[in-house]
Amino acid sequence: MPKANDHSPSRRRFLQSSLQTTGAGAAALFAPGVVNGYTAQEVQSFYVDGEMQRNVSKWELDTPALCVDLDLLDANIDTMQTTLASNGIASRPHAKTHKTPIIAHKQLDTGSVGICAAKVSEAEVMFQNGINDILLTTTNVTPTKIRRAMNLRQACPGFIQTTDSPENARLLSEAAQALGIVADVVVDVDPGGNRTGITPGQPALALAQLVDQLPGLTLRGLLCYDGGSQHVMGFAARRDQTLGRLVAATETFDLFNSSGLSTEIFSGGGTGTYNIDHATRGLTDVQVGSYVFMDAQYIDIGGETDNEVYSDFAPSLTILTTVLNDQYAGRCTTDAGAKACTINQPWPRVKGETGMDYTSGSDEFGTLRYGNDASRTYKVGDKLELIVSHCDPVVNLYNQMYAIRNDRVEAVWPIAARGMSA
Amino acid sequence: MPKANDHSPSRRRFLQSSLQTTGAGAAALFAPGVVNGYTAQEVQSFYVDGEMQRNVSKWELDTPALCVDLDLLDANIDTMQTTLASNGIASRPHAKTHKTPIIAHKQLDTGSVGICAAKVSEAEVMFQNGINDILLTTTNVTPTKIRRAMNLRQACPGFIQTTDSPENARLLSEAAQALGIVADVVVDVDPGGNRTGITPGQPALALAQLVDQLPGLTLRGLLCYDGGSQHVMGFAARRDQTLGRLVAATETFDLFNSSGLSTEIFSGGGTGTYNIDHATRGLTDVQVGSYVFMDAQYIDIGGETDNEVYSDFAPSLTILTTVLNDQYAGRCTTDAGAKACTINQPWPRVKGETGMDYTSGSDEFGTLRYGNDASRTYKVGDKLELIVSHCDPVVNLYNQMYAIRNDRVEAVWPIAARGMSA
Repeated sequence: MPKANDHSPSRRRFLQSSLQTTGAGAAALFAPGVVNGYTAQEVQSFYVDGEMQRNVSKWELDTPALCVDLDLLDANIDTMQTTLASNGIASRPHAKTHKTPIIAHKQLDTGSVGICAAKVSEAEVMFQNGINDILLTTTNVTPTKIRRAMNLRQACPGFIQTTDSPENARLLSEAAQALGIVADVVVDVDPGGNRTGITPGQPALALAQLVDQLPGLTLRGLLCYDGGSQHVMGFAARRDQTLGRLVAATETFDLFNSSGLSTEIFSGGGTGTYNIDHATRGLTDVQVGSYVFMDAQYIDIGGETDNEVYSDFAPSLTILTTVLNDQYAGRCTTDAGAKACTINQPWPRVKGETGMDYTSGSDEFGTLRYGNDASRTYKVGDKLELIVSHCDPVVNLYNQMYAIRNDRVEAVWPIAARGMSA
Repeated sequence: MPKANDHSPSRRRFLQSSLQTTGAGAAALFAPGVVNGYTAQEVQSFYVDGEMQRNVSKWELDTPALCVDLDLLDANIDTMQTTLASNGIASRPHAKTHKTPIIAHKQLDTGSVGICAAKVSEAEVMFQNGINDILLTTTNVTPTKIRRAMNLRQACPGFIQTTDSPENARLLSEAAQALGIVADVVVDVDPGGNRTGITPGQPALALAQLVDQLPGLTLRGLLCYDGGSQHVMGFAARRDQTLGRLVAATETFDLFNSSGLSTEIFSGGGTGTYNIDHATRGLTDVQVGSYVFMDAQYIDIGGETDNEVYSDFAPSLTILTTVLNDQYAGRCTTDAGAKACTINQPWPRVKGETGMDYTSGSDEFGTLRYGNDASRTYKVGDKLELIVSHCDPVVNLYNQMYAIRNDRVEAVWPIAARGMSA
C-alpha cells in the first residue's frame, strides 16, 4: 500500500514528541473491589512524604476529569494484538472511540494495519496528526463531503473510502477524476441491521463490479460491520448471532473472488466479537474500538471464560469526580452529571465499590445512593473514580484526557477529533 | 452593584464586534406543520436564481450542523423580558444552557440583571468574553476550585459565589482574605430535591448569619432553584408543585429579613415556571435557561394557554442532518446520531413533519422511521431539520453554532464554554 509522506507540508506533527511504541505493560487485570475511591483525608495523605508534590497526582486534578490509565491501556492493546495475531487476522481499530491521534499511533506502532474513521472530519484530523492509513467506514453522500474525502485521498494515499450504492460510486468516480486521482474504495455490505450498507449477494456484487469499472476508482474489497451483535449478552449467543449474520458477507466475498474482484480487505467485527471474527471465512481485520478503554456496557456482556464479567480487557478510562453535598441521608451529590458522563446506561460505576448506585441523569450533578451493604460513605470533598457507561460518547464530551501512570499525570492528550461529527 | 472595568487588561473582547442589542424581532410563533424538511432537489432549487449563492445558505452546511434561528431567538428573549417585567421580577439567565457569550450579551443588553453559571470554568469563560455579572450557582468545595472562584471575584467585582454549608463558608472566607478581597455570597437553599443546598429554615438562617459575620464575605441573599418542577406536565400541576416547594424558601427569606440579613437576591425558577415564579413572595429573579432555544422536553410539558404544546417560546435551536441511506423499507439512516443529538428523550423531532419517528440511539447514525401517515419519504442526500431533545447537553456537543436569519448564515458563534464542566 502506498504510504503518505510523513514530511508532507500539509501535515502537522505537533503531537509526535508524545508518541512512543508501547511495550506489553502490566497485566490487564480487572479486579472489582480492589481499588476504592479516596476520601479527602486519604488524598491529603498521599502528600505526606512530599514525593507526590513533585508531580501532579491525578487526585489533584480539577474535576470532572477524564483519565486513562497507561498501563491498562497498553495492556489492552497488547491483549488485542496478541490474540488477533494468533488467530491470523489483523486489527484496524476505530478512531471514533478515542478520537485521539496519540492512541491511534500506539495502535499502529503495535501492529494495526490502519485505523477506521466514522466521519470525514475525524479522518482529516487523524491525517493532520500523522496517521497515514485510514478507512472511512461511512458513505459520504453530499457533494461537499465527497469533495472533502477525495481531497483527503489526494493528500493521503493510504485513505480508503466506503460506498454503498451505484449512484454514490458514480459521484466518487467523478470527484476522483476531477482531481486526477485514483481513489481506493470498499463496498459496505449490510449485516442485516438495514442501517447502512448495500444488501449482500448480487446487489453488492453489482456495486463492486461497477466500482471496478469506473474510472478514478480502485476496488479494495468489502466491509461488513456487525454493530448489532457486539453487545449481545453471553459469549455463545454472541458468537452464534454474529457468525450467522456474517454468512451472507462471506458468500459475497466468494462472489467477489469468483468474479475476479479484489477481496484484499474484508473488514468487520468489533470489541465484543474480536475472538470470534476469525471464524468468519475470508475476514481480514476487525474494526475494534472500545477495547482500549472498556466501559460498563461491555463489562456486562460477559466473556468466553467469565460469563458474568467481560474481563478480557481492563477498564482503563475513568472519570474523576468530587462530592459536593453530603447533607442528605443515603446519598451524596457529585460534580459529574450528564455533561461529564452522558446518560448512557448502565450508569457509571464507582471503581472498587459495591452497594452504591451512581446516576448522571442531571446535566450538572451526579448522584451517589447508598444501599444497605455500602462498604463506606463519602463526604464533601472526597474523590470518586467512575468506570464510564459507554466510552465513545463520553470521550466526545472532553477536550483532553489525562494520561496516568501509577496515579500520576504523565501527559495530557488532546482529543483532537472531539466533536468531529460532520 | 460594582461593575467590572470593561477595559480590564485581563479581559479578552474578541467577540465584541459580533455583539448587538437585539430588538423585538419577529413574533415568537411555533407552528408545527408549517416548515418541512427539504429534499435534495428542493435545496438545489434554492439556488436557481443565483441569489442564495451570494450567501451561505444553511442548506449548504456540512452536517450535522447546530443552528439557531436569530429571529426566533430574539423573539424568545423578548417574550421572556416582557413577561417578567410585567410581573415585577427580573431574569438572571443560566449560561449552562447556551455556553455562548454572544447570547449572554444579548440577554444582558435586553435587561437581564446578570447571568448564572454552573461551573467555575464556565464562569471564567463568560468573564473572559466580556460578561461582568455572574452568579455561580454551584458550591465549590475543593481548595483549587475555591481559589479559582476567588481569583475570578478579584478580577470581576460582579461575581457572586454560592455556598451551602458552614464549613464551605469558612473556606471561602479564608480564600477571600488571602486575596485581600470581600467576596459576595448567596446561600443555596434546597427546594426539597435533596440534591444541593442547605435545608431551609433555621439551618439556612444559621449559615447566612455565619456568612454575614465571617471576614472577607458579604451576604447578598439566597437562591432556591426548583429544578425538579420545571418539567412537570401541565401548567396547573406545575404551578401547584413549585409554589408549594418554594414556601419554605419564602419562610427562609422572611427569617433573613427579620434577622437583618440581606435578601437583595432571592433567585430561583426556570423556563417551565417563568410565568409562575413571581407568585413566590420575595423572589427577585429567575434563572431561566432553555427559553432561548426550547426543545422537545419543554414542548411536551404544556403551557398556560395550550395544555398540549408549551408554545410560549419557539424552537430556535435545530440540528441539520443529511440522509445517508434509503435502501431499506420504512426507514432511512441519517448522519446525526448520539454524538450529534445526545440520547435524551423525547427523541429529536423532524421540524414540520408528522407520522415519522427519529431516533439517535446509535453513536454515529440517526434513524428515521415512517409510520402509515407519513407526509412523505426522504432520499439519500435530502436534508432534515431536527428540533433538539434537550438543549443543554446538545449544545455541549458542538464547538460552534450557526446563527441563521431567513435560512442564511449570518454569523458563526463559538460555543466558548463548551465542555467547561469542571
